[in-house]
Amino acid sequence: MTKYDPSQPDGFNESLDSAISADGTPHPTKRYTIPARCGVAARLNTGQKLTICNPSGWQVCDFWAFNAEDMHEFMSMEHIHTDLLSVSPKGGDRLVSNLRNPILTFTHDSSSGIHDTLVACCDSHRYQQLGHAGYHHNCADNLRQALLAIGQKAPLVPAPFNIWMNVPIRSGEGLEWAPPVSKPGDTVTFRAEIPVLTVMSACPQDITPVNGNENAPTSLEFFVDDE
Amino acid sequence: MTKYDPSQPDGFNESLDSAISADGTPHPTKRYTIPARCGVAARLNTGQKLTICNPSGWQVCDFWAFNAEDMHEFMSMEHIHTDLLSVSPKGGDRLVSNLRNPILTFTHDSSSGIHDTLVACCDSHRYQQLGHAGYHHNCADNLRQALLAIGQKAPLVPAPFNIWMNVPIRSGEGLEWAPPVSKPGDTVTFRAEIPVLTVMSACPQDITPVNGNENAPTSLEFFVDDE
Repeated sequence: MTKYDPSQPDGFNESLDSAISADGTPHPTKRYTIPARCGVAARLNTGQKLTICNPSGWQVCDFWAFNAEDMHEFMSMEHIHTDLLSVSPKGGDRLVSNLRNPILTFTHDSSSGIHDTLVACCDSHRYQQLGHAGYHHNCADNLRQALLAIGQKAPLVPAPFNIWMNVPIRSGEGLEWAPPVSKPGDTVTFRAEIPVLTVMSACPQDITPVNGNENAPTSLEFFVDDE
Repeated sequence: MTKYDPSQPDGFNESLDSAISADGTPHPTKRYTIPARCGVAARLNTGQKLTICNPSGWQVCDFWAFNAEDMHEFMSMEHIHTDLLSVSPKGGDRLVSNLRNPILTFTHDSSSGIHDTLVACCDSHRYQQLGHAGYHHNCADNLRQALLAIGQKAPLVPAPFNIWMNVPIRSGEGLEWAPPVSKPGDTVTFRAEIPVLTVMSACPQDITPVNGNENAPTSLEFFVDDE
């Protein structure tokens, strides 16, 4: 039987050509666009800050961080839940890895702080289950291709930090797909606590309202600056 | 630098000798003990049912399931959250894998249905952070060793289904370590939807009250029967 290889996309999209440089190192003064429905990787040195911008206000960013020297260590939602005793990281919080080491600090959040850490990123199987026929852009493939574009392979598809995604918990357990409450121009900033490879995906979900009631995914922007 | 190998324990405990048979296949009429603080693997064919028993009533079971033919596919909490639109699986619910395939069905639950799907299993780093000096049994090592004991390697340490673990969500986001509300003799039953390797760990946490206010981890029991 064919074994599942987490690093290989189920289909291809423009994210495979998304490299901002050969190894993902950003130019320190440049503002980059993450095209709608696509993913981009950015390499950060310790102390560098990544700011992600939400021009439309209603666009979710699926976000991952891997230890640049050992990708089996990565930002882990289930370990963050224990570390913060919360499912909702706030500006100022440290974000830990699957080895419980600080990997990023969530230094600033201009939004009202509604993000998701509970649900998997979308993937080809999700869109099949939602009734979509044929290939649909998806965050899992965007992650895999953004890394392949800089010569790296995802050893797994970790649970993402779903920035601006609004999945309220009802009665302590039920979840709901709700549109974002973020505003046009909202930003989040993360400081690298170790050298990291980050990946941002402008979520292509256009069947449930996670990217707004218009189901119209838009682009995002980012830039990196030194501390 | 030494790379992190998810399959290798940080230290060794009796779980390395826990094999119930060479490949983890259970005897169909036998009731097995999971020693306090240890982990055991059990192989199920499609349709077989695994019942886990809680003699003390206050003991948490960290629980995992892997596709027996491809361990990169495994029961995934973040995909279950999307599939069920809930963080709290109930008796009757299907439990999906990271490829969104049904892997187990949670067929029966004699308890009041309080289980956790949000927090990572305990590991050596967790006990260091809690101030424990020296080696402490931990569910991550129990998982790794229970699999090594039957000749298998964990390709990662997935987020566990923490059976009977009581981590209430406050105000829609804050978490709390609370003692179990399960009763002595409570059982849960899972049916295999594909051939699976399951691992059960009698959680050794004795610093926070997740295994009861006495901080006294106890043994668990299990048996497997055909449909």
